[in-house]
Amino acid sequence: MNREDLVEAITREVVSRLKNSESASPAAGGQSAAAAPSTMQLNRYVDHTLLKPESTSAQIDKLVAEAKEHNFRAVCVNGTWTERCARQLRGTDVDVAVVVGFPLGAMASRIKAAEARHAVEEGADEIDMVINIGALKSRDLDLVRRDILSVTRVTGTQRVTKVIIEAALLTDEEKVLACQIAEDAGADFVKTSTGFAKGGATVHDVALMRNTVSPKIEVKAAGGIRSREDAIAMIEAGATRLGTSAGIAIVTGGRSTDAY
Amino acid sequence: MNREDLVEAITREVVSRLKNSESASPAAGGQSAAAAPSTMQLNRYVDHTLLKPESTSAQIDKLVAEAKEHNFRAVCVNGTWTERCARQLRGTDVDVAVVVGFPLGAMASRIKAAEARHAVEEGADEIDMVINIGALKSRDLDLVRRDILSVTRVTGTQRVTKVIIEAALLTDEEKVLACQIAEDAGADFVKTSTGFAKGGATVHDVALMRNTVSPKIEVKAAGGIRSREDAIAMIEAGATRLGTSAGIAIVTGGRSTDAY
Repeated sequence: MNREDLVEAITREVVSRLKNSESASPAAGGQSAAAAPSTMQLNRYVDHTLLKPESTSAQIDKLVAEAKEHNFRAVCVNGTWTERCARQLRGTDVDVAVVVGFPLGAMASRIKAAEARHAVEEGADEIDMVINIGALKSRDLDLVRRDILSVTRVTGTQRVTKVIIEAALLTDEEKVLACQIAEDAGADFVKTSTGFAKGGATVHDVALMRNTVSPKIEVKAAGGIRSREDAIAMIEAGATRLGTSAGIAIVTGGRSTDAY
Repeated sequence: MNREDLVEAITREVVSRLKNSESASPAAGGQSAAAAPSTMQLNRYVDHTLLKPESTSAQIDKLVAEAKEHNFRAVCVNGTWTERCARQLRGTDVDVAVVVGFPLGAMASRIKAAEARHAVEEGADEIDMVINIGALKSRDLDLVRRDILSVTRVTGTQRVTKVIIEAALLTDEEKVLACQIAEDAGADFVKTSTGFAKGGATVHDVALMRNTVSPKIEVKAAGGIRSREDAIAMIEAGATRLGTSAGIAIVTGGRSTDAY
């Protein structure tokens, strides 16, 4: 059996097992699903996120101040703000997550590597990179792998790498493939979405991704998480990190209408 | 009068003149507006465009074949496809335009420069780069300028640089500022839109941009141009290049419903 056939067979098996597990229990996220965190402090799950291209320095400073106030896990920003955030967050428990190849994932691998390197040099603790979606759709799985490797070789074991698969654009089979390749290429997290595609995180996708990767890998849900209820649903499905602009609503129990 | 006051004064004057010219004649695009090209061949205006992140190699090959068949001016693609397009278009009149810092414009300037350099090395004839919109909104005009310069220093006089201002996110004053800075930093074109923001090219924006830059600079309209009628309206307003996925509909007189 050649590699592609093997991958296809494993993919079918994982998808089939997930479907069975979903029909047995809607919230069964597999071996790593968390207990319902209804009384849990959610702040350390939150990557406090501002990625809109028109965001100003004042809005970034506000994001950082809020992240400090609520002791969020990280801020998640575009590369142009890396140094500004790193400077303001030095000595705190809030990490700086910087996006790479974002949001299309369709730049050359070499440039994703350069972008990650530059972000790390400017103080990024975590890199949230987008896979080459077109290569996956073209079944150029070797390019998908090399593309992720180009970044994980830069981040190594000193920095966290989250691999965004942009689930809304993929079939279930492609989601499983993407997660397997990401783990194989050294990802620390698989992440559902950029927040810029037609859809964000779903419970189905988080559970599928959680079931696909090994316990060494975490799952970040991102896109469309607007309330404490949404956050808890994602955590119950297996997410250990939430990318959202509604972090304050989530920790205070409100609901943000324009969050992403 | 300091630089910022001067820029504000010029901006107000340009916007005011444009408003007068618009009320006098809806199609008056200023000194460079073209004659109505109702019988004109439009193919050489078209950058045949495919920028969706999920585009496959087969779809890119189809784009290239269509561009050859209709002798479009260029194809416009993401960086991962540069070498593939350049190879297939060698010896034709169809150029390869590659996007940089796309579509958010919020990566570090150094990475935009690296991305442009890599694209040129792989055969790009033209670079379509996105400005640092957040820096413009923060009135860090020096960063906006240096960011564009980081790319035009790479492209020099051998390659065409189009500077995307993402007009849908800007006020008229900001559009004028962005165009002035782009010309000052060596742009060959100012371009309205990425096609990924909430709005694309408008006749108003094309005319405003045409009135702002000198005759040495061209204007590319992009985003939402779906028919021959749309194309002609943009050209009448002053555009000499059209970024669209509806190139075939435009040259054959049809209308594309899902074009961008």
